[in-house]
Amino acid sequence: MALDDLQCPLPLSNYPNVTLGHGGGGRLSQQLIEGMLRPALSNPALDVLHDGARLAVPSGQLAFTTDSYVISPLFFPGGDIGSLAVHGTINDLAMCGAQPLALSVGLIIEEGLPMTTLWRIVQRMQAAAQSAGVAIVTGDTKVVERGKGDGIFINTSGIGIIPAGITIDPRRAAAGDLVLLSGPIANHGIAIMSVREGLAFETALESDSAALHGLVAALLAAVGEHVHVLRDPTRGGVASALNEIAQAAGVGISLDETAIPLDEAVRGACEMLGLDPLYVANEGKCLALVAREHGEAALASLRAHPLGQRAAIIGHVQQDRPGRVTLRSRIGGSRVVDMLSGEQLPRIC
Amino acid sequence: MALDDLQCPLPLSNYPNVTLGHGGGGRLSQQLIEGMLRPALSNPALDVLHDGARLAVPSGQLAFTTDSYVISPLFFPGGDIGSLAVHGTINDLAMCGAQPLALSVGLIIEEGLPMTTLWRIVQRMQAAAQSAGVAIVTGDTKVVERGKGDGIFINTSGIGIIPAGITIDPRRAAAGDLVLLSGPIANHGIAIMSVREGLAFETALESDSAALHGLVAALLAAVGEHVHVLRDPTRGGVASALNEIAQAAGVGISLDETAIPLDEAVRGACEMLGLDPLYVANEGKCLALVAREHGEAALASLRAHPLGQRAAIIGHVQQDRPGRVTLRSRIGGSRVVDMLSGEQLPRIC
Repeated sequence: MALDDLQCPLPLSNYPNVTLGHGGGGRLSQQLIEGMLRPALSNPALDVLHDGARLAVPSGQLAFTTDSYVISPLFFPGGDIGSLAVHGTINDLAMCGAQPLALSVGLIIEEGLPMTTLWRIVQRMQAAAQSAGVAIVTGDTKVVERGKGDGIFINTSGIGIIPAGITIDPRRAAAGDLVLLSGPIANHGIAIMSVREGLAFETALESDSAALHGLVAALLAAVGEHVHVLRDPTRGGVASALNEIAQAAGVGISLDETAIPLDEAVRGACEMLGLDPLYVANEGKCLALVAREHGEAALASLRAHPLGQRAAIIGHVQQDRPGRVTLRSRIGGSRVVDMLSGEQLPRIC
Repeated sequence: MALDDLQCPLPLSNYPNVTLGHGGGGRLSQQLIEGMLRPALSNPALDVLHDGARLAVPSGQLAFTTDSYVISPLFFPGGDIGSLAVHGTINDLAMCGAQPLALSVGLIIEEGLPMTTLWRIVQRMQAAAQSAGVAIVTGDTKVVERGKGDGIFINTSGIGIIPAGITIDPRRAAAGDLVLLSGPIANHGIAIMSVREGLAFETALESDSAALHGLVAALLAAVGEHVHVLRDPTRGGVASALNEIAQAAGVGISLDETAIPLDEAVRGACEMLGLDPLYVANEGKCLALVAREHGEAALASLRAHPLGQRAAIIGHVQQDRPGRVTLRSRIGGSRVVDMLSGEQLPRIC
C-alpha cells in the first residue's frame, strides 16, 4: 500500500520500540508527539493548543460520543485498529443523526510496540479521517508496562452537529415503522474470526469497516424527520441492536429472514464456525427505523449511495410482543431473536 | 467513606468479577450498563441515547479534549483513578479557558476485575463529576482478557465553552508576562510514589487531585483577556510544562526557586527519593502566564479561591534565552531547567 511507503519522520534507530519514557511527559514524549503523531495527524486545529482543541461551533444540537477500540489483531482484512477507530466514532455520531465535526484520539500503548507499527496505525487513522473529511483535533498518549496492555488500545471521541429538526432517538420507534438495513451483515466479525482461526476461504472475506455519515446525510436529506431511529449493529450484531431498540421503545420488531442481505461466503463461514450472522458484528452497516409511508423513499436514498447499494427493508415495528424481536424464518416458522448472551467474539472492535 | 456504604444495584453473586462477556455487546453488557454504570452515573443526557449524547450548545468557541488514565495503584491517598479521570479532563478544558459542559467515559477493563472495585470507581467518578457540576453524558465499556490490561484504564473526553474574548494559547506567552502558580507542587507524584514504595512519612502525603475550572473562572473574571497561557503541570511537572510553553512561544522563562510553593513534607520525600519536585506530577495545580500589569490582581483572585490560597508569582517571561527555562536557585546561582528526559514516574496519571 502507498501508505506504507511514507517514511516516518521520527528516526527509529535509537528507539525502534515504544518505551515507558514515551509516555512520561518529558523529552521522549515530546519527540514521539512532535516527530510522529503530530506530523501524521496534522491539521490546523491540532497544531495549536496543548491541552485541548478550540473549535468554532454554531448554536444548536451537538452530538458527543466515545468509543474505545481493543480489537485483536491490529491489522485485519479490510482494515486496522486505526481506521476502525475513526470509522466507529464517526458512525456513532452519524447514528445520533449528526454530521461529524471533530475527533479526539487517546492512545494506550504497551511498552515494546514497534514504532513502525504505531506509525502504520496513525497513518491509517489520518487517511480514514481525511477520507471522511473529519479532523482529529486533540490527542493523548499513555504507555503501560509490557504485559499490562496488548500492543495498542485506541479511544476516539467525537463531536458532531445535529441538523435542526432531526431527532433520532430509540424511543421514537413506533408501530408501523419499517426497519431498513444498509447492506449485508456479519462481514466484519467473520473477517476477524477467519484471521484468528487461520481459516482460508475461496472468496476473500473482508471487514465492512466504513464511515457512514455520508450515507446518513443522504437518508436525512431524503426523508428527514421521518427517520426515527438509527443504529450501527456492531458488537452483538443486528439482533442485539434491535433488541435494545425494542426494549427502549416498548415495541415489538418483526424481521423477515429472507430479506436480510447476507453474502454467500459469509453465510458459509458462519455455518462453518457455528455463528448466527444476526449476532455477528458489523462496522459499516446502519439500521434505520423509518415511518412506513416514507420507507420506499428512504430505501431509494440508501441504494443511491455507494455504501447502501444492497440496502433492504428487513422488517417492521409492531405493538405485539413489546420488547421482543421475532424472525419469520426462510422455512416459514417464527422464532424469538434474543439478545446475545455472554461473549460471542471477544475483542471484535 | 459514605460512598462505600452504597449498595451496588447489580447483584454480584453470579458475577463477582468482570468477564469477557461483559464487553461483548449482549445481555451481560446490558446488565453491567443498566445494572451498575447507568445508575451510578445517572443524569438526563446519559439516560436517553445509545451511541452518543445530544447537547444544546450556544454558538461560539468550544474546547474539546481527551485524556486516558492508566494510574497504578487504582486507589491512592487523596484520590483514585475515577475521580482523577474526571478532574484531569475538567482541568484540560479549564486550561483552554473553557468551562466544562460534558464528559464522556471510556472504560477498558481487564477480565477478572472485581465488580466491587468497578462499583467503587464509578461511584467516585460520579461524585467528582457532581461536585464539579459537570455531567458524564456518554460512555463505552470494553473488556480485554486477563493479562492484556491492568485492572482498568479510563479515558475521559470533554467539551467546554470558551467565554467570548478569551484566547488562551501557549504562543501568547510574551516577554514581561508573570508566571503564577496556584499552589504547592509535587504532592500528587509523591503520594503515588510513597504508596508504591511502601514509604511511611510522619505527615500524610496526599494527592492534590482537584477540578480547577472554578479557580480558572475566578482568574478570568478578575483579569480576563490578560491571561495569556494556562497549563496544569501534570506528567513531567512544572519544568516540562514551562519548557513546552517557552518553546511554543520562542521566549525564555526565568523562575525564582524561593518563590515556588512546596510543602516541607513533600520536599523531604523528594530528597529521600532523589526526585526534583519541579519534574513531579501535579493534578490540582495551575500555571498562569499573565500580563505583568495585571499580575497582582491575578494573584489576588487565585488566593481568594479555596484551591489557590497558596498561589505565588514564581517567575517571568523574558526575551533572553528563547526556548529555555532557567532557575535562580535558593543559594543565588542560576541553572537551566531542562525538559524531563525519559520517564521519571511511570503511570502517574
